[in-house]
Amino acid sequence: MDGLIMDEQLLLSSLLWRTERLFADKKIITRLETGKYHEYTYGDFAKRVRKLASALEKAGIKPGDRVGTLAWNHYRHFELYYAIPSVEAVCHTINMRLFPEQQRYIVNHAEDVMLFLDADQVPNVEAMAADGIDTVRQYVVLCDADEMPETSLSPVMSYEEFIATGDDDFEFREFSERTAAAMCYTSATTGDPKGVLFTHRGIVLQTMLETSHDKLGLSENQVWLEVAPMFHCNGWNLPHACLMQGATLVFLGVHPTDIDYVQTIEDLKVTGINAAVTVGNMIRDFVVASDREWDLNSLETLWLGGSAPPRAVMDWFEQTYGTWVLQGYGHTESSPQICFNYLKTTLQDEDPERIWQLRLTGGLPFPLMKVRIVDDEGNELPWDGESMGNIHVRSPYTASGYYNDERTKDAIIDGWLNTGDIGAITPEGFVMLKDRQKDLIKSGGEWISSIDLENALMSHPKVREASVFAVPDEKWNERPVAAVVPVDSADAPGEDELREFLGKDFAKWWLPDRYLTVTEVPKTSVGKYDKKRLRGMVAEGGIDNVTATIGV
Amino acid sequence: MDGLIMDEQLLLSSLLWRTERLFADKKIITRLETGKYHEYTYGDFAKRVRKLASALEKAGIKPGDRVGTLAWNHYRHFELYYAIPSVEAVCHTINMRLFPEQQRYIVNHAEDVMLFLDADQVPNVEAMAADGIDTVRQYVVLCDADEMPETSLSPVMSYEEFIATGDDDFEFREFSERTAAAMCYTSATTGDPKGVLFTHRGIVLQTMLETSHDKLGLSENQVWLEVAPMFHCNGWNLPHACLMQGATLVFLGVHPTDIDYVQTIEDLKVTGINAAVTVGNMIRDFVVASDREWDLNSLETLWLGGSAPPRAVMDWFEQTYGTWVLQGYGHTESSPQICFNYLKTTLQDEDPERIWQLRLTGGLPFPLMKVRIVDDEGNELPWDGESMGNIHVRSPYTASGYYNDERTKDAIIDGWLNTGDIGAITPEGFVMLKDRQKDLIKSGGEWISSIDLENALMSHPKVREASVFAVPDEKWNERPVAAVVPVDSADAPGEDELREFLGKDFAKWWLPDRYLTVTEVPKTSVGKYDKKRLRGMVAEGGIDNVTATIGV
Repeated sequence: MDGLIMDEQLLLSSLLWRTERLFADKKIITRLETGKYHEYTYGDFAKRVRKLASALEKAGIKPGDRVGTLAWNHYRHFELYYAIPSVEAVCHTINMRLFPEQQRYIVNHAEDVMLFLDADQVPNVEAMAADGIDTVRQYVVLCDADEMPETSLSPVMSYEEFIATGDDDFEFREFSERTAAAMCYTSATTGDPKGVLFTHRGIVLQTMLETSHDKLGLSENQVWLEVAPMFHCNGWNLPHACLMQGATLVFLGVHPTDIDYVQTIEDLKVTGINAAVTVGNMIRDFVVASDREWDLNSLETLWLGGSAPPRAVMDWFEQTYGTWVLQGYGHTESSPQICFNYLKTTLQDEDPERIWQLRLTGGLPFPLMKVRIVDDEGNELPWDGESMGNIHVRSPYTASGYYNDERTKDAIIDGWLNTGDIGAITPEGFVMLKDRQKDLIKSGGEWISSIDLENALMSHPKVREASVFAVPDEKWNERPVAAVVPVDSADAPGEDELREFLGKDFAKWWLPDRYLTVTEVPKTSVGKYDKKRLRGMVAEGGIDNVTATIGV
Repeated sequence: MDGLIMDEQLLLSSLLWRTERLFADKKIITRLETGKYHEYTYGDFAKRVRKLASALEKAGIKPGDRVGTLAWNHYRHFELYYAIPSVEAVCHTINMRLFPEQQRYIVNHAEDVMLFLDADQVPNVEAMAADGIDTVRQYVVLCDADEMPETSLSPVMSYEEFIATGDDDFEFREFSERTAAAMCYTSATTGDPKGVLFTHRGIVLQTMLETSHDKLGLSENQVWLEVAPMFHCNGWNLPHACLMQGATLVFLGVHPTDIDYVQTIEDLKVTGINAAVTVGNMIRDFVVASDREWDLNSLETLWLGGSAPPRAVMDWFEQTYGTWVLQGYGHTESSPQICFNYLKTTLQDEDPERIWQLRLTGGLPFPLMKVRIVDDEGNELPWDGESMGNIHVRSPYTASGYYNDERTKDAIIDGWLNTGDIGAITPEGFVMLKDRQKDLIKSGGEWISSIDLENALMSHPKVREASVFAVPDEKWNERPVAAVVPVDSADAPGEDELREFLGKDFAKWWLPDRYLTVTEVPKTSVGKYDKKRLRGMVAEGGIDNVTATIGV
C-alpha cells in the first residue's frame, strides 16, 4: 500500500538524538574510589560516544563483531553501551562474578574481537589469556593513560588513549532495528552458559515501557542509582530509560561497599534504585547498625529483582523513609522484564493481607508481553491462582533462542520461550513464581513450591533469609529441606518454632523435614539462591553434617 | 545472527491481549442522548470486538480493504477501531464536519467497501450515494435493530444485527506491524483532501509514548474523556492509551452540547480531557455563565490541541480547578504527536514569564521523533529560538507520503516530511509554531509570524480569539490584518488600544494594519482558523467592508 508510515528504525541512537538536544545539561554521575564524584552531562556523554564509535571503526570493528566488556557500573561502561552498537557491533557484557573458566568459555564462544576491562580485572584476564582467548585482537583498560597497570596483555592501551584516536564528527547511521546491540550470557541448568542477543528494537521497547506511568514511570525529575550490574541485561535497561527521559543517572563505580551505597544516596538525593534483593537487605542492615542517622528520605522507589524481597525489608523502607519497594519478574531472555508489580485501582478495597500477597508476586505482564502457564503435556492452565505450570513467554523483546547454541531447540515450544520457571497466575493477572523447574520439589507425585515456603519463612521476624530445596528421599522421591539465616545468630528460631509457624498456612506434607541454621545462603553469580550447591553440600556431607558446612 | 529477539509484531491486538486479561473489569462509558450512560467493561468490549471482526470476515472484508466510519465518539466506534484492523483491513474514519462533496471524494478515493454510520448521518450519506459512491457494498447504521431509521441506502442493516452475525471465538492473528490499521484524510492547501495511512506499529508506538511519565503519563487510575473527534487521527490515540493502561474511558456520544461536557465531567469525576482549544474556551464560558456551581475538581489534566490555548483560559482552569492545561504540536501525518509540552526541571528557576512563553509553545519533540527547521534553500537552521524555517519531521510514526496521491513527491524532502508549518526552536528544544507555510505573511521581504501576533492578542484581557492573516499590499507585497473576537461585544478593544498593546513586544512593521472586530473567527473542519476564508472575505468585500461580513 502506498503512503505508509516511514520505515524509521528503533535504534539506540534515536534515543540519543533527542537526549543530546533536549537534555544536554542533565547529569551522569559516577562515584570514584576517592569518595569524590565524576560528573558530566548527557551532552558530554554524547560527544564521547561519537568519538568512541569512530575509534572503534578505526580499530577495525565491523558490523556484527562482538566487543566484550568486563567492567563495573560507571560512565565509561555506559559510553560503550552506545558506541559499540552505533557501529552495528554487539556490546558483550561479561559477568564479572563468574569463575574465570566460565568467562573464558564465554569470550571464546562469543568470539569477542576486543575486550574493554576495568583495571582490577587485569590479573583475571591475564590468566584467561594464558589459557587462550584467541579471537581478542586488542585490550583496552578503562582508565586514564597515567593509571595504566602493569600487564602482560598485548596489545593493550588505556581507554582515554583509545578514545582519543576517534573523530568528533562521527555520524549515527540508520540500519535495521533487528540488529543485535548487546549480548549477555545466562547460566544454564546443565552445561555452559548460554548467550542471549538483545536487539536495538527490544531494548528501545523495554526502555519506553520503563518510562510508562503504571510500570516504573521513570521521569526526568528523578535521580536514579543504577545498582543492578551493567553486565547483567543492560543493567535492566535503567541507564537507557534515564537517558531517554533525561533523568539524572548515578553509578556506584568500582568496588562499592555498603557505606558507599548509603553515602551516595544521601549525597546525591537519589530518588530511585534498582538492585538485587540482597542489596535492600544490606542497606537496611547498614543503616540499622550505623551509629549515625542517614537521611535517605529522597528515596521514593526501590526496585528489587532476582527473587521476592522479604516483607520485613519492604516494610522497613516504607516506614523509615516512605520508600515504595516494588519488584518485577524477569530473566535475561526477555531483556529482562516479563512482569512488573503494580496494584490496580480495582484492588484498592481488597483485604490488606491479600494486597501484601499480591505485592510479593512478580506482578502483571508487561505491555506487549504474552504469558501462559502450561502443564508438562503442553496444555494451557487457567489463571486461577492455583494451577501451577511451566511459565512460557513471547514478546517483541524476548529471545527466539540462544546464540549459536543447540539448546535453543529445547527452549522454544510452539513459538513460546520456556522460562524454566514454575508459576501460577491469579485471575487478575499477577504471576506468582513458585519455583525453578530445576529446583522443583516433587514429593509423593505432588509439587511443593519452594518459593512459597521461602516467602513464608522470610515473613518470620527472626528469619533474614531462607532457601528451601529438595533432597532425595526413598519413600517420597524428594522432600524439602530449609536453610535459614537468622536475623540474630544468638536468637536463631528453632525447628519446632519454624514448623509450627509454617503449619498455619501449609499442609503438613509441604513442611520441610529439616531446618538448617546457616550464616549465609550460597548464591549464584547473579544473586539467586544456588540450590544446586545446597543440594551438593547435603549430598556430600549428609543432612546431619550440613549445618557446619554451609555458610563457611 | 542466530538467536535474535523474536519477531513478534506491534499490533493493536497485542495491546488488547493484555487488557482483556488484566483490566477486564475496568469501564468504557458513553453518554447517551437520554442523559444516561452506557457502561460496559473492557472485557465486554473485547468480546464484541471478536464478534465484530468475525462478522466483518463473513461479510467478505479482505486484508487491505478500507472500511469507512462516519460517526461520533462512542463505544461502537471504538469497537470498529479494533475489529477492522484485526482482519487486516483499514478503519477509515471520515471527518463528519466536511462538506458532503468532500466526503464523497474521500469515500471514492479510499474506495471504501463498507460504511458504518451514525443514524444522524443517514440523510447526508443518502445524498452522497445519490451522487455515486460506487465501491460501498454494505451500509451499517450504528444502532439497535429497533432504532433503524427509514433510509434509501441499500443494502443496509443495524450494527447490532450485523455484530450478531459474528462468532464469539474469533482468534486474533499475527501479521506485519507495517500493515495499515487506520486512515484519515487531511485537508490540503490546494485541491482535494489527502489520505494518511496509520500502521499498527505507528499507533502502538505513539500509544506507548502517551503513557510515558513525562509525556502525557496516562495511567490506570485515571478517567479520560475523549473529546477530540474519533474521526481525527484515532482520537489522538487517547482511546488506545486508555485501553493499554486500563484507564476508564469516557465518550460523549452523539451531538453533545456544552452542558453535556460539564455534566459528564462532574458525574463521572473525569480526571483528563483531550480536546481542541475551542472546547476549553467553551467549558469555561459555560461554567462562568452558569447559575450553579460545577464541581470539576476531579479534572487534573486538560490536553488542548489544534492551536495554542489562550493564556487566560489556561490560567482560569488552573486557578478554578487546579487543572494543568498543556498542549502538544501535532498533525495527521505524524499519528499525530510531534511535540508535547513538558517543563524540564532545569527550567524551574527560570523567570515565570519565560516559563509561560515556553508553556505556550508546541513543546519538546516526542521520543523517536526527529525535527529540523530548514530555510527555503534546504539549509538546516540553528535551534536559537530566533531562526524561523520550514519544520521537517521524521519518525517511526510519521507518514512516508499520502495514499495514492502524487502530492507525496512535494511533501517528502530527503526522507523528511515537510509539515507545512513555519517554526523556530529554542536552545532547550521547544518548538515554537510561527505560521502555516500557506498563511505566512511576507512583508517587505521579511516574515511576520501570525501566530506570535495571535498569541499576544489573545493575552489581552478583552480578547477572546484573534486571527492574523495576510492581505495583498502594493508597496509591501503583503501586510497583516487581525480579526478579533472580544470577550464582551459591548466592550470591544479599540484599534489604538490593540496597536499600543502589541507595540510593547513587536517591531512597528510587524503590527497589523487593521483590527477587525468580529463575532467569530471562521474555522476549518478540524477547528483551526480558516485563513483562506478570511482572505477570501477580505478580497471579496475589501477591508473596509469586512467587519460586517465576517462572523455572520
